[in-house]
Amino acid sequence: MSWPPLREELRGIEPYGAPQLPIDLVPVQLNVNENPYGPSAACIADIAAAASEAAATLNRYPDREFVALRQVLAWYLSSDTPAGIVPEQVWAANGSNEVMLQLLQAFGGPGRTAVSFAPTYSMYPEYARDTHTRWVAGRRADDFALDLDAARDLVKTEQPNVILLPSPNNPTGTALPPDAVAMLCETAGGNDVSGIVVVDEAYGEFRRADVPSALELLPSYRNLVVTRTMSKAFAGAGLRLGYLAAAPEICDAIRIVRLPYHLSAVTQAVALAALRHAPELLGKVDELRRERDALVVWLRDEGYDVADSDANFVLFGRFADRHAVWQGLLDRGVLIRETGPDGWLRVSVGTPEEMAAFRSALTDVNGERA
Amino acid sequence: MSWPPLREELRGIEPYGAPQLPIDLVPVQLNVNENPYGPSAACIADIAAAASEAAATLNRYPDREFVALRQVLAWYLSSDTPAGIVPEQVWAANGSNEVMLQLLQAFGGPGRTAVSFAPTYSMYPEYARDTHTRWVAGRRADDFALDLDAARDLVKTEQPNVILLPSPNNPTGTALPPDAVAMLCETAGGNDVSGIVVVDEAYGEFRRADVPSALELLPSYRNLVVTRTMSKAFAGAGLRLGYLAAAPEICDAIRIVRLPYHLSAVTQAVALAALRHAPELLGKVDELRRERDALVVWLRDEGYDVADSDANFVLFGRFADRHAVWQGLLDRGVLIRETGPDGWLRVSVGTPEEMAAFRSALTDVNGERA
Repeated sequence: MSWPPLREELRGIEPYGAPQLPIDLVPVQLNVNENPYGPSAACIADIAAAASEAAATLNRYPDREFVALRQVLAWYLSSDTPAGIVPEQVWAANGSNEVMLQLLQAFGGPGRTAVSFAPTYSMYPEYARDTHTRWVAGRRADDFALDLDAARDLVKTEQPNVILLPSPNNPTGTALPPDAVAMLCETAGGNDVSGIVVVDEAYGEFRRADVPSALELLPSYRNLVVTRTMSKAFAGAGLRLGYLAAAPEICDAIRIVRLPYHLSAVTQAVALAALRHAPELLGKVDELRRERDALVVWLRDEGYDVADSDANFVLFGRFADRHAVWQGLLDRGVLIRETGPDGWLRVSVGTPEEMAAFRSALTDVNGERA
Repeated sequence: MSWPPLREELRGIEPYGAPQLPIDLVPVQLNVNENPYGPSAACIADIAAAASEAAATLNRYPDREFVALRQVLAWYLSSDTPAGIVPEQVWAANGSNEVMLQLLQAFGGPGRTAVSFAPTYSMYPEYARDTHTRWVAGRRADDFALDLDAARDLVKTEQPNVILLPSPNNPTGTALPPDAVAMLCETAGGNDVSGIVVVDEAYGEFRRADVPSALELLPSYRNLVVTRTMSKAFAGAGLRLGYLAAAPEICDAIRIVRLPYHLSAVTQAVALAALRHAPELLGKVDELRRERDALVVWLRDEGYDVADSDANFVLFGRFADRHAVWQGLLDRGVLIRETGPDGWLRVSVGTPEEMAAFRSALTDVNGERA
């Protein structure tokens, strides 16, 4: 037995994570789809006050059921669906990646199958691996939309227990139309295995005005789960708060596999404080959408292929040597992400100044390589 | 397929967690081994300031490697072992239960075996279940000490990949002598599977003066892992910060299965602030140890069987109907825990006033039942 005695399938694997560089070395960081705008002084003060209140009883365990937080998250989500969301439909964990892991622990696992459609979020196969869920990746169409017939066929063939659908998709930015989600809920729910469909709306708040949230479909499909995060539109990546809306039975099922007291008293208090500032924290979403749309236009004017984006990032290409372009941008102080299908690169939408720096650096890299 | 389509082995299972009741209904809560003493105003203010600083860049992801926190935890642990601990030997997660889950994800899992010795911490079989690790529980001796010959035989027979050893043991309070840990490290490490030995020192700081920490054995055994928590002696149950010391290769192995950014920026900052107040937060440990020792004496004087305790709780019995005694105490405003071997009850060590209330209630319940 080799040392350390790690499981065989994990040996030699690099830990997941985007390459990170210190901000003093690379001033423009457009690689992990963060919101570039930090909280206001008033919001920071409220967060500090909330942490102080939580600290006063830090010797006690937190509310295992995080009732207050579930109530406020339900209130927040209710703005995206006429039927509203009640607290019993809400679950939360330390980042939506913990939410996904819990879903796969409860509904996936050995002898079970998870399906997604590539290109898709690169963490999904890791969640599957770490829960011993069989992983099957179908393909998206050339424009990164879902080919509904092919998707239906794959679901009928593979009988997945869990379908993972990012919408908007990461890394392509593509949102799913409601009829695609409805079709997959019907197909998966009608299978022998009664699979669940997880629509990952981590970037949901950035969707264009005519794109509805999958939350609207919850009353129609008991096997639908919609996940969200406070990391992106909410400008709370440092908070690590992911959550979902689903049938109460699904939330109750997750409670069986969650670690007790998984959400700290401080996390609950700080998330509640941030949610009290929702209008401010979400206030930059419109600006970021406009910046994104302008970026898409500019990149197309420059002759690039650009995927339509409903997120706060844009996938563009195609490059014979994308790594060289990524490196050229990095040499000019702009860090983006080398991810997605070969030949493409992903850039997060930052401030106007950051986007100007990106455009200038890309033009420069292009000139040098021309 | 039944609804919801939960994994079969999880159906009908109640989520783990001690029964909880509001403090206004039950004023004396001695059920989950919390430290009864909250932080000082100065510590609370420092925690608020740390949260405020973290909040200023809350839109950014936290340090994935939590370098600063690992450094301070290494410094803190170094006081318990002459060889010292370096940051590369330290890992941390949201509670020591997440640390345990990560250990079993990396070193346990399907086709692998975890061993402990009952009575033992009741969450261990759940970690094993949720990682699909085969669970084997040996038995402790009648006085809850480890029978070394029987333990060695079990390890040779079962060839466990992971051995879980709480020391002090929960729910009995029994600490393991170093020769027991050393023997199990040798036996498990010499097996075909090269198993790791996890000594769970969640209650380690409460051990009696002549009991060394298993940290002292780290230089001798590369397959030894010692886990700790800030929940108990550190009076930080609401913080959810568990950690471990082990060979750097073991920490690196865990990095493969950890969810990226699992420790929030706020958690890291608040834990660092609390660690700056370590002398204060740990300042009640001696008092709690004295209170515990007095409780053991009193219970024995009253004629109860009492397990020797190196923790901040005491297991006592035996009762023909322990549930009736638990209920009798609850009726008198004292909540303890109905756990451990049949006939025994576990009470946490609280303030002198709380212990007086417990003694009075127990005397009262006894009189009523006599």
